[in-house]
Amino acid sequence: MWGMIATWRMAVEGITKGSELLKAGKDAGDAIETAIREVEDFPYYKSVGYGGLPNEEMEVEMDAAFMDGDTLDIGAVAAIKDFANPVSIARRLSHEKVNSLLVAEGAEKFAHKEGFERKNMLTDRAKAHYRKRVKEVAAQEIKPYSGHDTVGMACLDMTGKMTAATSTSGLFMKKKGRVGDSPISGSGFYADSKRGAASATGLGEDLMKGCISYEIVRLMGEGMHPQEACETAVNKLDAQLKERRGQAGDLSLIAMNPKGEWGVATNIEGFSFAVVTENQEPTVYLVTRGEDGHCTFEVASEEWMENYMKTRMAPIEE
Amino acid sequence: MWGMIATWRMAVEGITKGSELLKAGKDAGDAIETAIREVEDFPYYKSVGYGGLPNEEMEVEMDAAFMDGDTLDIGAVAAIKDFANPVSIARRLSHEKVNSLLVAEGAEKFAHKEGFERKNMLTDRAKAHYRKRVKEVAAQEIKPYSGHDTVGMACLDMTGKMTAATSTSGLFMKKKGRVGDSPISGSGFYADSKRGAASATGLGEDLMKGCISYEIVRLMGEGMHPQEACETAVNKLDAQLKERRGQAGDLSLIAMNPKGEWGVATNIEGFSFAVVTENQEPTVYLVTRGEDGHCTFEVASEEWMENYMKTRMAPIEE
Repeated sequence: MWGMIATWRMAVEGITKGSELLKAGKDAGDAIETAIREVEDFPYYKSVGYGGLPNEEMEVEMDAAFMDGDTLDIGAVAAIKDFANPVSIARRLSHEKVNSLLVAEGAEKFAHKEGFERKNMLTDRAKAHYRKRVKEVAAQEIKPYSGHDTVGMACLDMTGKMTAATSTSGLFMKKKGRVGDSPISGSGFYADSKRGAASATGLGEDLMKGCISYEIVRLMGEGMHPQEACETAVNKLDAQLKERRGQAGDLSLIAMNPKGEWGVATNIEGFSFAVVTENQEPTVYLVTRGEDGHCTFEVASEEWMENYMKTRMAPIEE
Repeated sequence: MWGMIATWRMAVEGITKGSELLKAGKDAGDAIETAIREVEDFPYYKSVGYGGLPNEEMEVEMDAAFMDGDTLDIGAVAAIKDFANPVSIARRLSHEKVNSLLVAEGAEKFAHKEGFERKNMLTDRAKAHYRKRVKEVAAQEIKPYSGHDTVGMACLDMTGKMTAATSTSGLFMKKKGRVGDSPISGSGFYADSKRGAASATGLGEDLMKGCISYEIVRLMGEGMHPQEACETAVNKLDAQLKERRGQAGDLSLIAMNPKGEWGVATNIEGFSFAVVTENQEPTVYLVTRGEDGHCTFEVASEEWMENYMKTRMAPIEE
C-alpha cells in the first residue's frame, strides 16, 4: 500500500505529483518533498511559499518541517526569508544530528551555503493583499491575523516508510519572527513508520498547547483508526481550550497509518483536504463537523473546484 | 502543598529564592520566573543566560519558554541575543493570544519595545571558553557540540497552579539560528495544573523526537507517579532512539504533579537536580541510573557542592 493525505484543497496538485513517485515505488521522503514544493511554487496560494502573504513588516517569513518516520530524523526552518523551497531546506537539515532546527538569518546562511535557490517570495499580488489588509484593519473591518492555511502532509510508501512535512508563510500580518506550529515537532507534524503520521493546520499558538500531531500518532499506535484518532485528539483539545480559555482557535488535522488508512478532524467550518492512495485517485473532500464533534466529508463538486480557483486568481480590489 | 523541581545543581539558588515566594502564598508564575532569572544572572553558569557559551559565530543566542498550567498559555523566545532575562520575555509573550513564540531579530524587537533590559551576554570568560574550544576542535581533541545544560523547572503553588519554564544558551558552538528543545512546547517543557509539569535538558534534537515533556505530563494524568512517569518516558525514548538510530543523545527530565510529588529520570551519568517543597528544604541530588533504567538519587555531599563551585569558577587554561 502507499498513499498521501494533505491539508486543504491547495495540496491536490502536489499529492498528484507525489503519488506518481509512490506508484513507481519511490521513497516517501522524495514524494512528500515533491508534493510540498508544488504547493510552495504555485503563486496563487497565499499562505505557502511563493505568493505567501507577508508579516507586518511586509516580509514573507516562512516555516517548514520534514520528519522521517523510520529514523525519526527531523529537520525544520522557521522565520526564513527569500528561499524558494523551505521544505527542501528542512529535509536537508533532517540529515544533521545536531543543528537541525534553524531560524531566521541562521537558517538563511545555511541554505545559502548549501546552494538552495534564492527567490524574492513577495509577489505583487501579496503586496496588494497587504495594502488592502492595512486599510481594513485601520477601518476595524477585520482582525489582522485572519488567514493561516498551512500545507501539512502525511505520506506512506510501498516499503512502509512514513513521512510528514509542512510548509507555510504563517499567520498573515504576524509579528516579525513569529513562529507557529508548523516547524514544531509534535504540534505541526509527527511521523513514526510503525504508528503513522499526522499534520496540522490552524492557529499555531493553540495547536502547540496540545502537541496534537504527536497525540494522534500515539493514539494510532494504540490501535485507533486514523479517523477516530483525529476526532479524539481534536475534540479533546478543543474542549480543553474552551474550558481553560473560553475559546479555541482553529484546529484541523490529517493523519494516515501504516496500512494507508486515513482520517481527518476539524473544529471549524470549511476545512478541505486532499488524499490519494493505491486504491484511490487524487481526491478533494470537504469536511462537515457535526455537533457531537464527529466529522463527515464529501467529494468536492466540480463547481466548487472551479469556483475555488476563480476566487484564488480573481483580481484584488484595493 | 507547594514545590519546585529543577534540572542541575545550578538551579538550587534559584529555587531557594522561588520557594520563599511560594511559602508566602505567591503565584507559581512569579516563583518560577524569579528562580530562572537567578540562574540567568549568575555569570559562572556557562549554559544559561549571562556568561552562557556562544554559538560558532561567538554570539550568545538564547532560548527560553514559560507555560501557565491553568490557562495553557505559552510564551517562548528562540535565538534571541543581548537581553538579560529571556525567561521574562517568554512569560510576557505568554499573555499574547497570537505571536507568542518569537525568534531572533523579531524577538529582540519585541523585547526592546517592551522595555526589557538589554545586556551584552558574552562575558570574557565565555570568550576564553570559545577560544579554547576552537583550538581543541582544531586539534580534534573534542567534538564541537559537547555541553548543553538547560535549566528547566516545574513549579506548584498553594492554589494548585502549576507552571513550567526553561532557559538556555543552547549547544556550545552551535550554528547560528540553531534552536533546541527548550522553547518547544511538549519537548522542552509542558504544564497542566490538572496533571503536572515537566521539563527537559539534554540533546534538544533528540528530546524533540519524543515530545517527552508532554508525554510525562500525559502519563501523570493517567495516575502515574512522577518518578514512574519520568522513567517510563525516558527509557522508552532512549530505547526507541537506539533501535532506530543506533544511539540516543542525552535525555534528562524532571517532573512534579499537583500533589507536589516529584520525579526524575536520565539516560546519562552525572545528572543532578534541585528540589524544594513545603516538606523539604532546598536540596541538590545526584542521580544514578541502574542497568534496568531505574534511577536512584542521593543528596549531594558538602564536598561535592564545594568542588562544583570551585570547578565552575576556576581560571580557564587557554
